[in-house]
Amino acid sequence: MLEKEKTELASKEKQRVIKAALGEKPAGLVLKNASYINVFSKKICRGDIAVENGVFAGIGKYSGEKEIDLSGKIVLPGFIDAHLHIESSLASPAELAKALLPHGTTTIVCDPHEIANVMGAEGIEYMLEATEGLPIDVMMMLPSCVPATPLDESGAVLCCDDIAPFYNHPRVAGLAEMMNYPGVVSGDESVLDKISFAENRGKGIDGHAPGVCGNGLNAYVAAGIHSDHECTGFAEALEKLERGQHIMIREGTAAKNLEALLPLLSLQYEDRCMFCCDDRHPNDILKSGHIDNIVKKAVAAGTDPAIAAKAASFNAARYFGLAGKGAVAPGYKADFIIADSMENLDIEAVYKNGVPVYENKKIADFAAPKISSELEKKALDTFHVEKISEKDLSVSGRIPVIGMIPGQIVTEKRNAAEKIDLEKDILKIAVIERHKNTGHIGTGYINGFGLKKGAVATSISHDSHNIIAAGTNDRDIVLAVNRIIETKGGIAVYDDGKLVAELPLPIAGIMSGEPIEVIDKKLEEAKSAAFALGANPGVDPFMTLSFMALPVISSIRIMPCGIFDVDNWKFI
Amino acid sequence: MLEKEKTELASKEKQRVIKAALGEKPAGLVLKNASYINVFSKKICRGDIAVENGVFAGIGKYSGEKEIDLSGKIVLPGFIDAHLHIESSLASPAELAKALLPHGTTTIVCDPHEIANVMGAEGIEYMLEATEGLPIDVMMMLPSCVPATPLDESGAVLCCDDIAPFYNHPRVAGLAEMMNYPGVVSGDESVLDKISFAENRGKGIDGHAPGVCGNGLNAYVAAGIHSDHECTGFAEALEKLERGQHIMIREGTAAKNLEALLPLLSLQYEDRCMFCCDDRHPNDILKSGHIDNIVKKAVAAGTDPAIAAKAASFNAARYFGLAGKGAVAPGYKADFIIADSMENLDIEAVYKNGVPVYENKKIADFAAPKISSELEKKALDTFHVEKISEKDLSVSGRIPVIGMIPGQIVTEKRNAAEKIDLEKDILKIAVIERHKNTGHIGTGYINGFGLKKGAVATSISHDSHNIIAAGTNDRDIVLAVNRIIETKGGIAVYDDGKLVAELPLPIAGIMSGEPIEVIDKKLEEAKSAAFALGANPGVDPFMTLSFMALPVISSIRIMPCGIFDVDNWKFI
Repeated sequence: MLEKEKTELASKEKQRVIKAALGEKPAGLVLKNASYINVFSKKICRGDIAVENGVFAGIGKYSGEKEIDLSGKIVLPGFIDAHLHIESSLASPAELAKALLPHGTTTIVCDPHEIANVMGAEGIEYMLEATEGLPIDVMMMLPSCVPATPLDESGAVLCCDDIAPFYNHPRVAGLAEMMNYPGVVSGDESVLDKISFAENRGKGIDGHAPGVCGNGLNAYVAAGIHSDHECTGFAEALEKLERGQHIMIREGTAAKNLEALLPLLSLQYEDRCMFCCDDRHPNDILKSGHIDNIVKKAVAAGTDPAIAAKAASFNAARYFGLAGKGAVAPGYKADFIIADSMENLDIEAVYKNGVPVYENKKIADFAAPKISSELEKKALDTFHVEKISEKDLSVSGRIPVIGMIPGQIVTEKRNAAEKIDLEKDILKIAVIERHKNTGHIGTGYINGFGLKKGAVATSISHDSHNIIAAGTNDRDIVLAVNRIIETKGGIAVYDDGKLVAELPLPIAGIMSGEPIEVIDKKLEEAKSAAFALGANPGVDPFMTLSFMALPVISSIRIMPCGIFDVDNWKFI
Repeated sequence: MLEKEKTELASKEKQRVIKAALGEKPAGLVLKNASYINVFSKKICRGDIAVENGVFAGIGKYSGEKEIDLSGKIVLPGFIDAHLHIESSLASPAELAKALLPHGTTTIVCDPHEIANVMGAEGIEYMLEATEGLPIDVMMMLPSCVPATPLDESGAVLCCDDIAPFYNHPRVAGLAEMMNYPGVVSGDESVLDKISFAENRGKGIDGHAPGVCGNGLNAYVAAGIHSDHECTGFAEALEKLERGQHIMIREGTAAKNLEALLPLLSLQYEDRCMFCCDDRHPNDILKSGHIDNIVKKAVAAGTDPAIAAKAASFNAARYFGLAGKGAVAPGYKADFIIADSMENLDIEAVYKNGVPVYENKKIADFAAPKISSELEKKALDTFHVEKISEKDLSVSGRIPVIGMIPGQIVTEKRNAAEKIDLEKDILKIAVIERHKNTGHIGTGYINGFGLKKGAVATSISHDSHNIIAAGTNDRDIVLAVNRIIETKGGIAVYDDGKLVAELPLPIAGIMSGEPIEVIDKKLEEAKSAAFALGANPGVDPFMTLSFMALPVISSIRIMPCGIFDVDNWKFI
């Protein structure tokens, strides 16, 4: 649209809203006698809320074409997740939207880091297309660290020039979590260029710097990194906040930081804080919810309800420059939640642009986003690898064993082994490069996984998402890996030559197009199957496995080119 | 510069800053043992502040090439005036900068409304050129209401298309105060287009809506107007704040709102508030200062010093989207103030981009901005009008007298007169259109001005800046008016055929290129001369006169086409 036409259209829309605001004509919708969260005065205010043409027209005394009496209810701005990896839900964006809407989320700010590690720039493009026109607004931050390390054998390498064109997309809000702290503080030009480019475009730059403090933090922040979602303690968060970073308080499935960061949710600090989930697994979303879950927890812990609701909406909108979002106020987009109270936060309805998208426990129908056929085909065909055979799994000589620690993703180097030994819980582990048909297959031994029979494999393997497998015998490992190659992604559990459970993840090998309830059921079945084969109880076997090929975490990992000593940064 | 080069340059600059932040090399400047205002935690913090390459590198323990021990001192972010008409100082931007720097102001957000009423788009261009490269950053908001009313005979009419090109200028931050409330709420397309255009460009839109409340306020805010600087009471301010407007707390020469709005400067509301001077006259700047004066008053009245300092800096920077401004934090521009204490706020030094621009009571030399010669010529030649003679001042018949009210700019319609009557304080008043040689000269009578002898005239006459004169006899009025035409702008006082005082204002007829001290001296002499001729003591005679042709204020005004009844919106 030409700029002139765009201006005139906007003026015409304003005319309608102004008339409704003045009360010169009935507003399309009036929420009568509403209490609502005022994010500006941080108070609960009252009035009739007039909605017209998708935006709030005014708060006062109003009549509407449609009126809903909200006596005793409360209206909140729609929730915004400030940092989310859609891929962690294992669901497609459309299916995830269906899961999040009942929880009041109307905007998510995503980092398509996982799919970008598989598909590169086409992965970003896929996510943009797969989120177009959803009843939830999906903003994108562009992955800053693909691959995670030069060591990673990912599907793509994304330089500044590769991601730069995406900044022209109206839903791209900035550069996603800059995990490469060493690259930043060493002044690596390829890293700084990504920051500088985003900055010159006036875009936000998210951080990821667990535990960084002092002069190192000064340097990281001075480079232009404006947020952090890795704070685990108040002192760390306050230091980052005082250096100018916005703090995203994270409640993910694994990492839960709200309790430690509750002191941030006071008048002194709240305006620099927002909420995010980062990684939430399907079961967690179904059981606990989403941002509503964080708000409820915060309020239960004594946070002022208005401050909690503001951190869950307006603060994120302001940080990301999402104009007209995150408030119940004239001219703001009518993205809102109707709940019973701030204490229960029982969500009765959710509106997007003035239209109900969730009410009476039902989500309004919406058309699935159209993905261009070539891109869709590519996303469903990301396994460029030959099937393996038992000889591919040979291990030469005695090598140190990867020691898993229950409930943690760090590992430790344990005594060397030269074969599988079930009595000592020494299993075989293998990583199969699957993006470029390099034939790279790393093999080794693992202790602490617990399997007594069979094998498991998954194509979720951070951050490169090669195929990773662990098992009690080569035959079942080969079958599990080949099953994943056959189904072009997923999780497979084999016992004695038989497939006993699986979760297909055909979208880039990391997501399913099925409803989240179906994904959850299959995943839980796969976990049960693994537990039945002896996998360590109380630990998610696939999540644990998915971190074993991530070389940024201590102390020993398996890579497609062999066992890697992280602490000494060299292959063994 | 190409985007790629710009990116690479930014990265190179980041490399320097990162090294200094890490302490790997001495920073260019270190403020040792400093206390400073942390605008994020709203506290006074301590540390060595490292400055490198024009930005803050870090706060902690640092060594520098140059070190200044600041034990016992306090560092604040440079002050930002959120809404200022440079023209009200009567000084050129360069001379005003010299006057403001000692007060700690490093950024002003200006509305060149006055010069635009004289010169149109060229007036905006002139101000952009005249502010380029000053040691104070001058951001521009584009005048939204030129002329003030369709009735005004100004030098130009500015439509959306006229101002639109200026949004490409890096120092244009948005649309200036939308004074045309009736135009907005009536849905006038030419008014809304200006708002829509700015909005589509992601720019801010300032408001001006004294006393507007209820559904009218809803409509005005819903139209997209994000700030207000006209609040005179807390209830009014809170209503606007709760509707989403940012509140600019104004302390001008005439309008002083801080005291009434002090409750805004609490943790509950402070993040939506900033400071502005709007209109400050030369004498007031010299005597009282600028934003420092507001901060001092606020602190003296009990405001938390950190909150006062934040409202004076960061909040305005954030509202206007001035990235990297308004905080002492890594990566922020090193625009800062060194003061003795928050209580006295005795400003010892002011730095801009890490370089001292004021210290030891001296302003660092700077080159005057280069204005293109044709534009300069035009700015110095804005009087397109023939000299007048006594017959131009004839008044036909008995007409109502404009009644001045001491200390106010509203007027009242008083009993009709048909001639000057000094005993009854009935003087002649005249407005001479001076932009387009229309020959329009409005004449009438005024009561309450007080002159017993002679006449005064000024080419500052809101908002059209025609020549306005009042006097006891036609001869002196003619001389005063013609003197202003001759000098191409200013203030003139005549007595018995002789020029007794004058202030030349050759830049667009409203500003002088002389130092503000000289302007002030001449203005004070002109006032004294007017008082000596009998002008009402205690009231600024020229300021009072300058509002007599502004048809938006009750109840009776003089326009180039005659006496105007504001309340009934018709000529008499």
